[in-house]
Amino acid sequence: MIHAVILVGGSGTRFWPLSREKMPKQLLRILGDRSMLAITVDRALAMVPENRIWAVTTVSQAGLIKRELDSQGFERVRVIEEPVGRNTAPAIGLAAMRILREDADGILAVMPADHHIQQPGSFVDILRSGEMLADKGYLVTLGIKPMRAETGYGYLCKGSRLDAPDMGDSSLAAYRVARFTEKPDEKTAEAYLHSGEYFWNSGIFMWRADRFVEAMKRYLPGHYEGLMEIDGLGVPPADPGRMQEIYAGFQPISVDYGIMEHAGRVAMIPADVGWSDVGSWASLREILDKDADGNVLVGDVLALECRDSIVYGRDRLVAVLGLEGLVVVDTPDALLICREDQSQHVRRIVERLREKGRAEAVTH
Amino acid sequence: MIHAVILVGGSGTRFWPLSREKMPKQLLRILGDRSMLAITVDRALAMVPENRIWAVTTVSQAGLIKRELDSQGFERVRVIEEPVGRNTAPAIGLAAMRILREDADGILAVMPADHHIQQPGSFVDILRSGEMLADKGYLVTLGIKPMRAETGYGYLCKGSRLDAPDMGDSSLAAYRVARFTEKPDEKTAEAYLHSGEYFWNSGIFMWRADRFVEAMKRYLPGHYEGLMEIDGLGVPPADPGRMQEIYAGFQPISVDYGIMEHAGRVAMIPADVGWSDVGSWASLREILDKDADGNVLVGDVLALECRDSIVYGRDRLVAVLGLEGLVVVDTPDALLICREDQSQHVRRIVERLREKGRAEAVTH
Repeated sequence: MIHAVILVGGSGTRFWPLSREKMPKQLLRILGDRSMLAITVDRALAMVPENRIWAVTTVSQAGLIKRELDSQGFERVRVIEEPVGRNTAPAIGLAAMRILREDADGILAVMPADHHIQQPGSFVDILRSGEMLADKGYLVTLGIKPMRAETGYGYLCKGSRLDAPDMGDSSLAAYRVARFTEKPDEKTAEAYLHSGEYFWNSGIFMWRADRFVEAMKRYLPGHYEGLMEIDGLGVPPADPGRMQEIYAGFQPISVDYGIMEHAGRVAMIPADVGWSDVGSWASLREILDKDADGNVLVGDVLALECRDSIVYGRDRLVAVLGLEGLVVVDTPDALLICREDQSQHVRRIVERLREKGRAEAVTH
Repeated sequence: MIHAVILVGGSGTRFWPLSREKMPKQLLRILGDRSMLAITVDRALAMVPENRIWAVTTVSQAGLIKRELDSQGFERVRVIEEPVGRNTAPAIGLAAMRILREDADGILAVMPADHHIQQPGSFVDILRSGEMLADKGYLVTLGIKPMRAETGYGYLCKGSRLDAPDMGDSSLAAYRVARFTEKPDEKTAEAYLHSGEYFWNSGIFMWRADRFVEAMKRYLPGHYEGLMEIDGLGVPPADPGRMQEIYAGFQPISVDYGIMEHAGRVAMIPADVGWSDVGSWASLREILDKDADGNVLVGDVLALECRDSIVYGRDRLVAVLGLEGLVVVDTPDALLICREDQSQHVRRIVERLREKGRAEAVTH
């Protein structure tokens, strides 16, 4: 059976001042009336019942995440708590072992809680195809056709097309992954964009839980041993201190780098689902409805002669005149104004605030 | 004796959101710790005692103005109330007649309350020279050497130099005014800038009160008649309703257009006093101290990679990243962000707000 594993990590630095240390971006209602986490649970519910949805997060954020799930009526979504964040490979390993305890044939559909998917219907179709491949032992990753020469993502290079038998009666194509590549430079990204052979690595995966644990044993044996010992502590762990000790001792490593780049039988399904990484204020302008001048205006905003700008107002009037390519985010205790093409540097502001011990970096 | 006549008019539209309908810009503390009005009174006090300083304002703003004067310890500054604003010619006429009631030889030094003067000492020297010319019956205006091809000001073209006898022992030069010109187009402004013959019309004047009333009688006879009738009502007017009726009936007209452009014996003193019109947010960047990147940052501001920008923070943290040539003004109920080169259009925002009946246009 499929289980949705939603990764709810990250410190929410890039969406400051809406996101704070104690308000991760997955809880923000920046894509509409509901949080990104709630929207992700909705997508998963189209495929699996609520009690087969698992949210993996850290102990420090678990309280917030549970409150949000409860408030949205998702009381049966289960929360797996990492003692500390150690990147995606340990987090998914922890979830895989937990799920294997009650479903030896479990197939995981792993997805971050902070992506936007414009066509959730197509997304479910693709996961159904992925299920068939995962069932045959493939480690499946969803590839996104590049829309621009993005230098901030890893890429997948597609290999030979998989035969129909592996795909059942799906009309979707799937490919072996010839190789994974790190974030490219601009020239290389440009070449990837035009080649038709390269796809963005979406961070959405499917695999059998047992196959994943097997791959961990082979490619990350230290992590595997630790997770086996943690599994032996039971649920909830009989000795939380020991669990904390083991988990905190893990080297942080991503599932791409730790497993996918080394494993055999890795497949990619090109996923034309209107996927967007919601990575910075700039990325929101791609996703949200814009006015005729390319502006996204939220709240009590009076805009004259503005173009290609994002203005997030809240309690107060925000009047903007002559802006171009700017991001404005207003909150009761802090205001951000930055150039859209620098919005990935907002974390530098947050770092400065943390250095200064400013409360505005932590909470609202 | 010299009397300082401070014109405290205007709706403060251009400094929104700090200025409001009920918070004219002359009361703003944007040049430092004190209001522009208080700084103007200070300048006048270098020349005349407090009870020979007159603030001319409208009935609707008189309460605010008096409160500000009192709070700054200027209880003896006298306030002349226009029933409604009718531009500078009627306002100065009203003051001239009021002052003539107690000083038949009075000389007026007329100055707006919203200018910045970097060298108040030199300013006093110039007014002393102006006093001598005014005493000889000249209508004196201070001319400012143009610093740029400004299209927003009127200009004075200097004529023949006045002889030493008229100037006493002053080392300062004075000239007849060959002519007044309206706001020029860009090409003309450029020519004026390089000619050395043209000066900005500062709006700072000196003349004998009786000479001014005489000039009004000749060039603005309707206004003169009305002001005479108002004068006949006494101080305070025996019939305020009648005063209101007469004054409201005046055609609004500036002293430049209504009198100076027509009168004889008009003199100009080039005034090298570091004068600035505080006309828009952009003009503040010329006046206030800038950091190495040309920014004026006031309040709790964290700026990264910003240039040539003005940020007025207040109660909240304002974080700015990558801005160039922008103006940011934060107040508790309204926030303005605009391009500096469009800051003279802030009034368009205020007009919109008034159309919508928004409180943010009126008060804080």
